[in-house]
Amino acid sequence: MDARPEHPVQAASIAAWDKETDVAVLGFGIAGACAALEAARAGAAVTIFEAAGGSGGASALSGGEIYVGGSGGTDIQNQNGFTDTTEDFATYLAMAGGQDPDMAKIALYASEAVNHFNWLRAQGVPYKGSFLPGKIIEPEGDDTLIWSGSEEAWPFVTKAKPAPRGHTVQSVGWGGGRKIIDILEARAREAGVQVETSARGRALVVENGAVAGVIIRQNGKELAVHARRGVLLATGGFCMNTEMIRQHAPEALRCSSPLGTIDDGSGILMGQAVGGRAIHMNEFFVTCPWYPPESLVKGIFINQAGQRFINEDCYHGRVMRTALEQQGDRVFLLCDNAIFARPLELAGAELAAVGESWGEVESELGFCSGTLSRAIAQYNEHAARGEDPVWHKAAKWLQPLAEPPFAALAFIPSQSYFSYFTLGGLETLPTGEVLALSGEPIAGLYAAGRAACGLPRWGKGYSSGLSLADSSFFGRLAGKAAAKAPKMA
Amino acid sequence: MDARPEHPVQAASIAAWDKETDVAVLGFGIAGACAALEAARAGAAVTIFEAAGGSGGASALSGGEIYVGGSGGTDIQNQNGFTDTTEDFATYLAMAGGQDPDMAKIALYASEAVNHFNWLRAQGVPYKGSFLPGKIIEPEGDDTLIWSGSEEAWPFVTKAKPAPRGHTVQSVGWGGGRKIIDILEARAREAGVQVETSARGRALVVENGAVAGVIIRQNGKELAVHARRGVLLATGGFCMNTEMIRQHAPEALRCSSPLGTIDDGSGILMGQAVGGRAIHMNEFFVTCPWYPPESLVKGIFINQAGQRFINEDCYHGRVMRTALEQQGDRVFLLCDNAIFARPLELAGAELAAVGESWGEVESELGFCSGTLSRAIAQYNEHAARGEDPVWHKAAKWLQPLAEPPFAALAFIPSQSYFSYFTLGGLETLPTGEVLALSGEPIAGLYAAGRAACGLPRWGKGYSSGLSLADSSFFGRLAGKAAAKAPKMA
Repeated sequence: MDARPEHPVQAASIAAWDKETDVAVLGFGIAGACAALEAARAGAAVTIFEAAGGSGGASALSGGEIYVGGSGGTDIQNQNGFTDTTEDFATYLAMAGGQDPDMAKIALYASEAVNHFNWLRAQGVPYKGSFLPGKIIEPEGDDTLIWSGSEEAWPFVTKAKPAPRGHTVQSVGWGGGRKIIDILEARAREAGVQVETSARGRALVVENGAVAGVIIRQNGKELAVHARRGVLLATGGFCMNTEMIRQHAPEALRCSSPLGTIDDGSGILMGQAVGGRAIHMNEFFVTCPWYPPESLVKGIFINQAGQRFINEDCYHGRVMRTALEQQGDRVFLLCDNAIFARPLELAGAELAAVGESWGEVESELGFCSGTLSRAIAQYNEHAARGEDPVWHKAAKWLQPLAEPPFAALAFIPSQSYFSYFTLGGLETLPTGEVLALSGEPIAGLYAAGRAACGLPRWGKGYSSGLSLADSSFFGRLAGKAAAKAPKMA
Repeated sequence: MDARPEHPVQAASIAAWDKETDVAVLGFGIAGACAALEAARAGAAVTIFEAAGGSGGASALSGGEIYVGGSGGTDIQNQNGFTDTTEDFATYLAMAGGQDPDMAKIALYASEAVNHFNWLRAQGVPYKGSFLPGKIIEPEGDDTLIWSGSEEAWPFVTKAKPAPRGHTVQSVGWGGGRKIIDILEARAREAGVQVETSARGRALVVENGAVAGVIIRQNGKELAVHARRGVLLATGGFCMNTEMIRQHAPEALRCSSPLGTIDDGSGILMGQAVGGRAIHMNEFFVTCPWYPPESLVKGIFINQAGQRFINEDCYHGRVMRTALEQQGDRVFLLCDNAIFARPLELAGAELAAVGESWGEVESELGFCSGTLSRAIAQYNEHAARGEDPVWHKAAKWLQPLAEPPFAALAFIPSQSYFSYFTLGGLETLPTGEVLALSGEPIAGLYAAGRAACGLPRWGKGYSSGLSLADSSFFGRLAGKAAAKAPKMA
């Protein structure tokens, strides 16, 4: 055999199954971990097949933030003085879904998120409980609660009362995702989940229109795995598959850094190959960590026409996804001496111009005379009054850029650190059931995490913690649903 | 039976074929007409199944322009003083393809377009031969050659020597597409093509992984049609399928007017259901006919932040696709008394503000004091020197907007006439062979026109005549390829 994701295998062509399980989970990131754990606790025999040498996937590269709110707030939100209604949370999530939010998933998650968070704690995921104010990417220490999205920023703040909802695992420094995975892996193994590593899902096996198993490549051999209750795709997105990016999201090719591990789109392809419907395949998250320090939020971004294009106090990824749409190959962050500081080395920003006057800066950048001076004059005039009538940056970030020297930092998608991952994937019900082109569920097939199109589905609507939240919560639901599915012969 | 595009039918389930043909063509727009004609002339038995009561499809709603150039130019280009190299033509088409132009199709079409144009004339499609200068949408009279894209506009003009390439059928007034279809229908019938109308393709029939036929619904019955050499999908795009638009191109839902007849995406779904790969499904053409009169091109478009966003002398669809990306629900065209004229009634533009000074206009529009006055002052200063350093409108369209009264016309995607159709579809080889998810052709399946993803695949790169050019040229190639395919049992 030489199975490929695009070619489902007919069960009739398999002489004998090499392995039997109830639920075969492909991928051991947070979606796969949560799915397997719940399926096993519901009594199913579960095997996770992970293509890499161990658990983690893109989840382990993440900051370990989970986007949680609603139901009055988590105890941690409450202890730190925040409340959060389910309605505000749902409104925010709906706005974050762009033109096509998944209202069924939003309604369910908005009302269940606090319970889900407590479940994660019950698994042993630790949270210090402290609130870290300000605009940051991930805590440098081991704090818990942060503003991790655009909650306080226009237009979100006009419709949904803001609350900080990023809940970060207690772990010093960036990259707490690894710790969450380690804990969930331990729970999954305790629950009897069997884990096969260096075991790559190659193709689904179908029988009478239902998914009955999966072909796994391990140790140079292909194994036919019978999944009596279903196969659950938790294989991640497709940011590492240049050909798929070309077909669906070619704008991402302008960015320097796909953010993932394997993320080859194989789960999406396997799903499509058995009739699954992939949606919003053009959408992707992209960011460049242009703050901290948060003083930079008091600067203004301009495009190569010298125009502002966003309220700089919204989420860094929303800024950068919008930056990518601007004409030209870079954007500039303008600062004065009062706010200037170098962004993280990681960001790869370039000091493009410095001058004693804005006229000097505009001339160094090659802008027409008057372009920046006029733009800044208008911005400063409004900022002095605490107003930003066009772009609506909140008053606390408004301060005239009036203290020389002045500087322009260049952010260049192809050269700075612009990291991206895909948001399009298989359309699923809240239970993880994969929908066919017809809109009906495909028997025996489930998807969760970025192999599915979930809560995060619009590049300009992302918030840190949203993908882990979606992957863990709907991963659990998918695992439960698969475990309860009728056993196939 | 109740066949649906999403569910292929197994040949084994068909007791007896109701009809036999070599090539079954679904859809009788220009792609289907050209495909059927060439297949019949190559000796195949051909049947066209058209869901509507007669031929036409979206092609018949079009202006009847074909985008042609290269090879030194058509005789009509030459007679009117234009030459056009294949290299310039190919460069323009590649720029028009956005981040993922189909270089194989471009190379072929750029070198064969003149021959293709002469073939159309040989079928009887008449061209007066005259050149109509200026910026227009479609000739009001029966002229032939027009500037129908962004050839003379930045950035295209910086890389490809411009030539007018829109070749319009001789037909008085708009809507010449109907005439082309009538002529091609006559030729197809003469060549022996059998035409079935009110006959809708419902599902493909597959046998051993190859497409062997199609289920047709006609007169309330479902007929199983055996297509011994293949099925050719020429069913158009999906702008009339709100559910598919939601899944793939939800931004289009902000526009008032889908432009099509049936265009329900059924061909794309049928192709996907047998494993076909659909690409660039988020891309769509959109326009609002904001000129003529061409004097308006001397105006400037601004968004709701009071910012210009495009060189107004590029193609009207490129302007409006970019307009749709601007923040807010409308854009404004600013004019002075010297250039003002009402656009076509059809455009549905709204006179949003009039004033004796730009300050008055900006105040009526609710902009901050100084926004328009400053922007216009800078524009006028440059325009007086024949320069547009930021947006690069060509000197011939630059004229200070200095003669009162001044006006702002509002263009509102949801209320003005913003018509759109989809550009994403099945990925095909130049021969029309539909590619599977794996990238290999699917035996027995061809697609052309907007059921495929062809030369036009980027909303900001469209030119009038590009879709008819692509549909007719690659329709012909697909018809020839299907006719030569080995006969299935």
